[in-house]
Amino acid sequence: MSAALRIGVAGLGHVGANVVRLLQQHAADLTQKTGRAVTVTAVSARDAKKQRGFDNAGITFHANPLDLVRDANVDVVVELIGGADGIAKDLVLAAIDAKKPVVTANKALLARHASTLLAKNPVLLFEAAVAGGIPVIKSLREGLAANDIQAVYGILNGTCNFILSEMTATGRDFADVLAEAQKLGYAEADPSFDVDGFDAAHKLSLLSALAFGVMPDVDAIRVQGIRAISALDIGFARELGYRLRLLGIARKREGGQVEQSVEPCLVPATSPVATVEGPLNAVYIDGDFSGKILLTGAGAGGAATASAVVADIVDLARGHALPLLGRTGAIAALKAAPIGKRQGNFYLRVVVLDQPGVIADISAILRDCAVSLESVLQRGRDPNQPVSVILTTHDTAQESMEKAVEKIAALKSVIEPPHLMRIENFA
Amino acid sequence: MSAALRIGVAGLGHVGANVVRLLQQHAADLTQKTGRAVTVTAVSARDAKKQRGFDNAGITFHANPLDLVRDANVDVVVELIGGADGIAKDLVLAAIDAKKPVVTANKALLARHASTLLAKNPVLLFEAAVAGGIPVIKSLREGLAANDIQAVYGILNGTCNFILSEMTATGRDFADVLAEAQKLGYAEADPSFDVDGFDAAHKLSLLSALAFGVMPDVDAIRVQGIRAISALDIGFARELGYRLRLLGIARKREGGQVEQSVEPCLVPATSPVATVEGPLNAVYIDGDFSGKILLTGAGAGGAATASAVVADIVDLARGHALPLLGRTGAIAALKAAPIGKRQGNFYLRVVVLDQPGVIADISAILRDCAVSLESVLQRGRDPNQPVSVILTTHDTAQESMEKAVEKIAALKSVIEPPHLMRIENFA
Repeated sequence: MSAALRIGVAGLGHVGANVVRLLQQHAADLTQKTGRAVTVTAVSARDAKKQRGFDNAGITFHANPLDLVRDANVDVVVELIGGADGIAKDLVLAAIDAKKPVVTANKALLARHASTLLAKNPVLLFEAAVAGGIPVIKSLREGLAANDIQAVYGILNGTCNFILSEMTATGRDFADVLAEAQKLGYAEADPSFDVDGFDAAHKLSLLSALAFGVMPDVDAIRVQGIRAISALDIGFARELGYRLRLLGIARKREGGQVEQSVEPCLVPATSPVATVEGPLNAVYIDGDFSGKILLTGAGAGGAATASAVVADIVDLARGHALPLLGRTGAIAALKAAPIGKRQGNFYLRVVVLDQPGVIADISAILRDCAVSLESVLQRGRDPNQPVSVILTTHDTAQESMEKAVEKIAALKSVIEPPHLMRIENFA
Repeated sequence: MSAALRIGVAGLGHVGANVVRLLQQHAADLTQKTGRAVTVTAVSARDAKKQRGFDNAGITFHANPLDLVRDANVDVVVELIGGADGIAKDLVLAAIDAKKPVVTANKALLARHASTLLAKNPVLLFEAAVAGGIPVIKSLREGLAANDIQAVYGILNGTCNFILSEMTATGRDFADVLAEAQKLGYAEADPSFDVDGFDAAHKLSLLSALAFGVMPDVDAIRVQGIRAISALDIGFARELGYRLRLLGIARKREGGQVEQSVEPCLVPATSPVATVEGPLNAVYIDGDFSGKILLTGAGAGGAATASAVVADIVDLARGHALPLLGRTGAIAALKAAPIGKRQGNFYLRVVVLDQPGVIADISAILRDCAVSLESVLQRGRDPNQPVSVILTTHDTAQESMEKAVEKIAALKSVIEPPHLMRIENFA
């Protein structure tokens, strides 16, 4: 049997504590799987005294995470502190410079500093950075490596999916459900990183990088969160046979361009992603030979994320490590496809004063912008009262749609900014 | 860059031809991913002359597949001939003895001869043997390796899923839809390996072996196919809020026992597997830390299966190979859990003559066998004519249910063998 692989864990929150527990509970099984002992020899956390449900025997506590790098009894540094910069970044860079393999769940660090990291040609694994326990990184980098990936997309943020599921199930409004999600621990006290779509965007940039062999580029992603979604939109979507999901979508376009977006979309109620409820994630990988592969499961949570962290540790224990983005040689910058050229179907809700001629005005604008209507729905008829008009379109360019919406917003009888969302049929 | 990896492909049916096409089309991309050229240098097939959509330049044709092993320009032998014995087995064993790595899609060979193969400690990869393009073998062996797997189950046969989906969508009967599936190429001329559940059983035995670290044992699986499913059962299942799916299920039980079955089951219409339509596969892996991970995609077809074959080739090109079942050391025999002790909910359709007292007789038998009814449904009332009575039960032991069914079958007013199926709620 090979020598033991000795693990140092920085950060003992839900994920970190579960990683140590998992490695201790499954020690015998992991030895059978890897051919060697895998043991936690050191940890670092703010509070040395706190009980975290694992056995402290044989584990050195370091107040300073950087001491994990200097500790001669640590072979692998597991970074679970988080944050694109600060101590997490210092730790990862120090470990790489000391030639110690790194395992991390830190999507922000990877998304923001990929080129710095790549330049060091590190042994760095990050299955836990995207979609929690779902082995999506390994599937892109290895299981579907034979394919020219056409697209990767799905539900990448469990908090938003929980909120949208609850809004759909109960008819309650965003703020109300967000408060519940915070109480249940599905949303942070400051929820903006999740509900404004940035968490999903960081993850999408990493999926994109692996799928298309380009550098991650969060700033090239069109990002829109779910704060503006009302119970009204959810109700109308349902009536039209759709559900609302926050989708991250990265698609290969002509000339090696990549189109990336994170935004709320209407999906057919019978589509697999519509059945993904609560704090789950679901990722489609569309390969030219494999066809569409869908991976679904817990996208967050201490235990599920620990499963992914330890999968990376198992890979290292088995002597299996690949280049950071799964490719040798230089990685090209991402060429962003102009989002305006994107084609698709749209849902548009316009709140108008119920006056004669309003629908005629809206229809004329859409016609002039070359937008072809699929359906029009109007509920409630109270002359001179606000009423929602819901329109769905045939295949249309994003820029035509946006031009039309701008003109519609300027109509006198339109009394709030129109609500525009894409319909994703996964064709 | 490392030396080229030279591939010899035995069997040029849909899968084999797609493997060669894929390796040629994606040569540059695969070199970037693996750091070396991956080239097909030799093939073997019955017909040397047939055009198969790839470039023959530089490819040696061998009439005898065993010559691939002897060919000094072949580093890896890809076996796509199929069959548990005969030339496929000879080829794989010869390659292993010659220390050439093997990639195969041959589930029957693996399921039947795992102990012979294991004894040779081979480099043998088989992602394509289960669920076509879905990276389920890699997910079990690597992506979810951190977990103590509790269960693995799902839709493992695309032919059956196509037939059941079509029967559900159209109300047509089994024989009729089978004929269509044969015409479409989704079912073989002799469909029994698929529709009688044996194909799914072979696959389940491999999933079980990887999940639980035991030897595959097809004969320990309770196998029931879909021939006996009628349009009536599908209709009643739908009425009760269920869909019918052929499920392979392997679950860990007390004392390291494993319970394995392949049989048609009722699943809730809103469950993700119910939305898996047509010739797709869907596999759940339930890990103690990861929770339930669901993988869905094309379970067969030349292109999708080629994606899995080439994923294994990519692993080899990257120098990544694991023990056959993902574990070092001796692999224990599977301890089969007695299926009679299995608990669950059941659907029972009894065809009776519509006479007074029939339901009372049936209910009394169920009560005496300690089976608790959840619902009773009877349609059509034509005195002394055959009518279906549909019963669903609360949680019941399989053996109690079977004893009750035996007694019900013996009733004079029961005019055909009762139709018993499990209801799987995926709790």
